[in-house]
Amino acid sequence: MTELTSNIDYPRQTLDAVFKPKSIAVIGATPKRGTIGHQLLQNIFQFGFSGIVFPVNPKYESIHSIKCYPSVSSIPDPVDLAFIVIPKESVAQVAEECGEKGVGGLVILSAGFKEVGGDGLKREEELSELQRKYGFRIIGPNCMGILNTAPSVRLNGTFAPTEPESGSLAFMTQSGALGVAILLAVKKRNLGVSYFVSVGNRVDVSGDDLLEYWAADERSNVIGLYLESFGDPRRFTNLSKEITRHKPIIVVKSGRTAAGSRAASSHTGQLAGLDIAVDALLHQCGVIRVSTLEEMMDLVLALTKNPVPKGDRVCILTNAGGPAIMATDAVVNEGLTMAKLTGATRKKLAGFLPEESSLRNPVDMIASAGPDEYGKAMEVILEDKGVDTVIVIFVPPMLVEPREVMKQVAEASSHHKKPVYCVLMAEDHYYDEIPRQFKNAPPLYRFPESAVRAISAVNGYRIWCERPEGNITTFPCEDPAIENIINDQRQSGGGYLSPVDVNRVLRAYGFPLCNVELVPTDGDVVVAAEKIGYPLVLKVHGEDIIHKSDVGGVIVDIPDERQLLGAKAQMDRSLADAGVTDRVEGFLVQEVAKSGKEVILGMTMDETFGPLLMFGMGGKYVEVLKDIAFRVMPVTDVDAIEMIKGIRSYPLLEGVRGEERVDIDFIVESIQRLAQMVNDIPAIVELDMNPVIVTADRGACRVVDSRIRVAPLRPSAGQT
Amino acid sequence: MTELTSNIDYPRQTLDAVFKPKSIAVIGATPKRGTIGHQLLQNIFQFGFSGIVFPVNPKYESIHSIKCYPSVSSIPDPVDLAFIVIPKESVAQVAEECGEKGVGGLVILSAGFKEVGGDGLKREEELSELQRKYGFRIIGPNCMGILNTAPSVRLNGTFAPTEPESGSLAFMTQSGALGVAILLAVKKRNLGVSYFVSVGNRVDVSGDDLLEYWAADERSNVIGLYLESFGDPRRFTNLSKEITRHKPIIVVKSGRTAAGSRAASSHTGQLAGLDIAVDALLHQCGVIRVSTLEEMMDLVLALTKNPVPKGDRVCILTNAGGPAIMATDAVVNEGLTMAKLTGATRKKLAGFLPEESSLRNPVDMIASAGPDEYGKAMEVILEDKGVDTVIVIFVPPMLVEPREVMKQVAEASSHHKKPVYCVLMAEDHYYDEIPRQFKNAPPLYRFPESAVRAISAVNGYRIWCERPEGNITTFPCEDPAIENIINDQRQSGGGYLSPVDVNRVLRAYGFPLCNVELVPTDGDVVVAAEKIGYPLVLKVHGEDIIHKSDVGGVIVDIPDERQLLGAKAQMDRSLADAGVTDRVEGFLVQEVAKSGKEVILGMTMDETFGPLLMFGMGGKYVEVLKDIAFRVMPVTDVDAIEMIKGIRSYPLLEGVRGEERVDIDFIVESIQRLAQMVNDIPAIVELDMNPVIVTADRGACRVVDSRIRVAPLRPSAGQT
Repeated sequence: MTELTSNIDYPRQTLDAVFKPKSIAVIGATPKRGTIGHQLLQNIFQFGFSGIVFPVNPKYESIHSIKCYPSVSSIPDPVDLAFIVIPKESVAQVAEECGEKGVGGLVILSAGFKEVGGDGLKREEELSELQRKYGFRIIGPNCMGILNTAPSVRLNGTFAPTEPESGSLAFMTQSGALGVAILLAVKKRNLGVSYFVSVGNRVDVSGDDLLEYWAADERSNVIGLYLESFGDPRRFTNLSKEITRHKPIIVVKSGRTAAGSRAASSHTGQLAGLDIAVDALLHQCGVIRVSTLEEMMDLVLALTKNPVPKGDRVCILTNAGGPAIMATDAVVNEGLTMAKLTGATRKKLAGFLPEESSLRNPVDMIASAGPDEYGKAMEVILEDKGVDTVIVIFVPPMLVEPREVMKQVAEASSHHKKPVYCVLMAEDHYYDEIPRQFKNAPPLYRFPESAVRAISAVNGYRIWCERPEGNITTFPCEDPAIENIINDQRQSGGGYLSPVDVNRVLRAYGFPLCNVELVPTDGDVVVAAEKIGYPLVLKVHGEDIIHKSDVGGVIVDIPDERQLLGAKAQMDRSLADAGVTDRVEGFLVQEVAKSGKEVILGMTMDETFGPLLMFGMGGKYVEVLKDIAFRVMPVTDVDAIEMIKGIRSYPLLEGVRGEERVDIDFIVESIQRLAQMVNDIPAIVELDMNPVIVTADRGACRVVDSRIRVAPLRPSAGQT
Repeated sequence: MTELTSNIDYPRQTLDAVFKPKSIAVIGATPKRGTIGHQLLQNIFQFGFSGIVFPVNPKYESIHSIKCYPSVSSIPDPVDLAFIVIPKESVAQVAEECGEKGVGGLVILSAGFKEVGGDGLKREEELSELQRKYGFRIIGPNCMGILNTAPSVRLNGTFAPTEPESGSLAFMTQSGALGVAILLAVKKRNLGVSYFVSVGNRVDVSGDDLLEYWAADERSNVIGLYLESFGDPRRFTNLSKEITRHKPIIVVKSGRTAAGSRAASSHTGQLAGLDIAVDALLHQCGVIRVSTLEEMMDLVLALTKNPVPKGDRVCILTNAGGPAIMATDAVVNEGLTMAKLTGATRKKLAGFLPEESSLRNPVDMIASAGPDEYGKAMEVILEDKGVDTVIVIFVPPMLVEPREVMKQVAEASSHHKKPVYCVLMAEDHYYDEIPRQFKNAPPLYRFPESAVRAISAVNGYRIWCERPEGNITTFPCEDPAIENIINDQRQSGGGYLSPVDVNRVLRAYGFPLCNVELVPTDGDVVVAAEKIGYPLVLKVHGEDIIHKSDVGGVIVDIPDERQLLGAKAQMDRSLADAGVTDRVEGFLVQEVAKSGKEVILGMTMDETFGPLLMFGMGGKYVEVLKDIAFRVMPVTDVDAIEMIKGIRSYPLLEGVRGEERVDIDFIVESIQRLAQMVNDIPAIVELDMNPVIVTADRGACRVVDSRIRVAPLRPSAGQT
C-alpha cells in the first residue's frame, strides 16, 4: 500500500500541488451518469491515477464501491488536491474547508463566477481572498479540468469524453468547450499530451504560470495555447521570449476582428486588445501564431515528430503528378524554396528509377514506384546537402501496399536528421494504423497544402531561433525641461502639446527637425520667415485642426516674401471658407526639408498592451493600402529592422529604378529613439511624426510635422 | 433478359455512347488480383451495371464464371462501349477492331501515349486518326476511368478502390491519381457523384465536352473540375459563362506558381498559361476557384445541401463561446456580414433561453442548451428577415445527445429556405451517422473556419448570379490608315511602333492624347515647342531606350524657350553619360497634361489565353506593391468596372480627404476601347499606356505616354 505522505510544503505552493498530487478529493462526486461529477470521477479511475482518490458527497456512503466522505474535513488522510464540482453557492465554504484541511490545490469546475457578472464577481473575489489566506493554488473556476499523463501521476481530471494519449504537447485553453474539441483533434491525429489545462476564469493560476511550469518540464516539447485574452502581456513577453528559444509555443488567439473581439468580451468579460498588437507581441516573442485549431494540430504533428530543419529548401518525392504540382504551388506560395537537386543526386536517382520519371524537383517516380523505389529515393534525396526538408507524396496505386511504402520511408527517414513530411492520399484507417505500426514514421497529412503550411510555420520558427536577440540602445533625454513641459500639459488637462513644445521634446530625444517659428494670429509671418529663410512652408496652427490640408491650412514651396504674403491671405480666406477661423491659434513658418522619401513614425496606446509603435511609408497610397508595421515594447534594433523590412513598400526605401537607397540606419535609430521616449514618458498616449523625410544623406533627414498628446494628470470623469 | 439493341446512332456519336451504354466490353479483363484489368471488372460487377458486360482476353475462356471472348470482334452481340486495359503497343489495333465492330465509345486506361513523349506521341496520333475515321468517342488514354451512378446505368468503370455513392456532383479530373483521392474525399464527407470522369490525355473527349454534357444533365447540380491546363480557353469561357448562371462550377487549377506550372508542364507536356490569366478567366466566367481539394469538398457539401442565400448576413447560434468567437472572426475576415438581429427576435429568444445567454449575434445559449433550445432558437433566427445564413455550432456537453440536437436543427432548417451550416465538434462517428439518419440535416463541418470559407464562396457565387451580364460596346476604328501602319511594321520585322504611329493608332480608337511633336536628332526643339505651347515636356525617343527616366531622358514642366534649351543640353549630357547616345532616334516635345491621378492601362499576350488586359494605378508605389487587375477577353462594361474597383488603391480614384472623384466612366470606356483595339488588331502583342492622367473633368484626361509592340509578319527563326 502507498503510504499517505503529502509531497507539498505549506504555505507557499508551487504548481506541483496541482499537477503532482498523491491524493485527491473529488468534492461533488456522484454515481449519477451524465453528470460532470460522475464523468470526472470515472475519468480519474479509468486513466489509472497513481495516487488515492477520495470521493466527497454527503448524500452517498459509497460510490462505485468506494467509500464516500461527507466532507473534505472528514477524510482522515492528507489531501493534496481537491476537484470541486458543486453548486456555485457552496464553493467558497468548501474551499475554506480545504484550506483548513491543508489542501494544496483546488480545481474548481463549478461555473457561475466572474463569467456571469453580478453576484458571480463577488463569489470570485471570495475565492481570491481564500487563495491569499491559505496559499493553495486554484485552477478555474468555470473550467473543464486538468490532465497530467506523466506515468508517475496519470491524472485525467477532466470531464472530456476523450481519453488522451501520453505525448509531448502541453496545452492550455481559455475555453472549456474548445478544450473538448482540442482533445478530440489531438486524438484524431494520434498525438498525445503531457499536460492539458482548462484555466477557466484564472482567479489564481494563469497561462503565464503554466508557461513557466512547462518551460522546465522535460516531457513537454511543444506548448499550445488557445487564448481569448492576455492577462499580463509584459510577463507573457518576458517568459515566452525566453522559452521559444528552445521550445516552440503555438497560439490560436481568437477575437481577431472587432466583431470577434466583442464576442470574446461578452464571453469572458475581458478586453481583448487590438489584434495588430497581439500580432506584434507574438511575433516579437517568437511565438507561432496560427489561425485555426486545424492548423495548430498540423503544426503540433510536425513539431513533435520532426526536427527543426537547417534551411527552407524543400524537395518533393511523389508517385503521382497532380498532388506534386499542388505541393509545389504551396511551397512557393508559402515563401519556401524548391530545392535544386545536385547532378550527383539526379544521376543516382536515374540509376534505379524508370525512364519516364522526372528527376527534377518534384521527383516523380510515376505510379509504378513501390516500397523499394521509395526507400532508395528517400536515402538519395536525404543525402543531398541542398535539401533541408522532404515531402513524400504517396497515392496508393494497385498492387502497392501503403504499409510497405511507409515502412521504407520511415526506415530511410530514421537514418537522417532531416524533417520528412508524408502526404498519404489513402483510406482513413491507414492514418491510424501507420503511426501505430511504425513509431518512427514521418507525420502523415491528407493533403499537400496542410503539410506545406506546417513546414512553413516550422521554417518561421527556425528563423526566429537563428535570429539574434537584438539590443536596446539607450538614448537619454538631453533636456531636463521636458519633464516640466509634459507635467504642465498634464496638469492643464492633457491633450496635444503646442508645436514648439513638441519640437523641444523631439529635439531632446535627438530627432532632426525643420526649423520652425510659431507666429500668433496677430503676429507677422514675414519676421518669422526672415529667421527661417526661404523657401519655406506656411501652416495653420490650431489644436482642433487635425487635417490641416483639408481646410487649406498648408501652403508649401513659398519662394519669397511677396508670395508669402499672398499665401497668408489665401490661407486666411480658405480657413474662413472652411469655417475654422475661430479655431486658429496661430501660424507656423517652417524650413523646407530636402526632397526624399516620406515615412511615418508613430505611437498609439493600447489599453492592454501599452505603447504600440508604428512605422510606414508616407503619402496617400500607403494610407489607403494600410501598409504599416506595428511593434509593442520593448523594441530592439533587430525588431526595428524587421519592422522597416516588414512593410510591402520597403523596396521603395532601397530605391527602385536606380534611385539611391535612403539611410535605413537612420530609421532604425529613430524607431529606437521613439521607443526610448515613450518608455521614459508614459504620459504620452499618442504620437505622430508624419512625414519624416529620409534621404541617402543622414544629415538631410528631417521630421517635418508631428504631434504629441499626453494624458491628463488625473483622469477626468467619464474616463476609465 | 434484356434485349441487346444498341441505343447509339452511327457514325455521329454523342457522349451518350460513353456514358449510357447497354453493353460494354472490357478488353484486357483478367482474373489476376491486384491488376487494373481485374479491379475494373470487379468494380463494374460490384456496382451493378444495368447492361451486359463482355470480358475480352484471348488467354481466358471465362473470368469469374463469365464467358470471356478472345477479341471484341468475336462478341456476337453489339457492343456500345469498350474499356481498353492492354499494353500500349496493341491499343491502336484493338481500337481499329472496335471501330469495325461499330463500338460507340472507348475508355482507354492504358498509359504510354502523349504523356511519355517520343513514340507515345505517335501512338496518340494514331488514336486520333482512328477516332476521326470511325466516329467513336474516346476517353483517355492514360486515364483511370469513368463513372455514371444513374440508376438506369450504374456504371463504375474505374479501378479506384472506393465505391462511390450516387449524388449530384459531376466531377472531371485531369489527374488520375488525384481522382482516387477525390473519390475518397467525396466518400468521407458522405457526398455522392452523378458522374466522375478521369479524362487522361484528352485525345478526343475534353473537359469542355463534359461541361456541355453535364450542363443539360438533371442529376448533376454541381460541377467540379481538377485542371492542370486549359485545352480551349475560348470554348471554356463561352460554355462556363452560360452554365454558371444556373449551375455552379468549382475548379481547382494547379500550377499556380511558376515552379508549379513547370512541374505541370513536365507532367502533362502542356503549357499551363499565366496564373493571373487563369484567375481572370475563371472570375469572368463565374467559376468558383478554390485552392485545395479540401476547400472544394467543403464547398460541394455546401452547394449540394444548401440553397444559395439571398444575401451575405450570417447569424451564429452556439452553446459554447470559444468556437463562436472563431466563427465570428472568420465571418468578418471573409468579408461577410454579421447579421443584426431584430428586437423582436431577441425578445423571442429571451423568452426561453436562460438569463446568462447572449442574445446578440453570436447567440450563445450556454452549455445547458439541449435539443429543445436548439430547435426553438433555430426557428426564431431563421424567421428573422435580417438573417440570410445560419451557422449552428454545437459542442456536445454532458447529458446532451448530439443526434437529438441535430434532429431538431434538421427539422427547423427544413421549414425555411435559408442555408444552415452546422459546426459539430464531436467524435468522428457522428459525421457518418447524422447525415445517414437525418436526410435533411444541414452540412456538417468540424471547424468554424471551413464552414465560413464555404459560405463565403457560395456568397461569391450568389453575387455572380445577381451580377448583370454586361455589354460589349463597339468603338470602331476611325482611321483606315491603321491597318497599313501595323502591316508595315509587321513586314519590317515587327517590334515597337514609332511614337507617332502609336499616337495615330490610339487616336483612331478615341484615346485622348497630349499633343506631341517628334524632332529628329538634328532638328530644332524650339520650333516644335512653338506648335505645342508652353509648359511642355521634353523626352528622348529611341526604340531601345525603354526606361527613359533612368537615363535622364525625361524633363518635365519646362516653362519657356530659355529653359527648354537648357533642358535639351542637359539631356544630351545625361544620355551621353548613360552611354545611350547612339540609341537616340530623336526627341519628343509634348503638351503637359493637367494634374490628376496617374493610372496604367496595358495588354500583354498570353500564349494560352490570348490578350490579357491590365489596369492599375501609376507611380512607383503601385509598381512595388503590384496592385494591378487583369482580365481576359472578352471584356464587358461590368468586367471593366470590376477591374477598376478590384485594385486595392481604388479609393484614391474615388478621392480621399476631400479630393474630387476622377471620371471613372472615362476609365471604364478606355478599358473597353483598349479591348476593341486588341480584338481588331491581333498583331498587337504588347501595349502600355503609362501614365494615363485621369481627372474629374473628362475633357482633361490624357494618355501621356504609351508604346505598342506588334508581332513580325512571319515568325522569325527561333520563335515558336
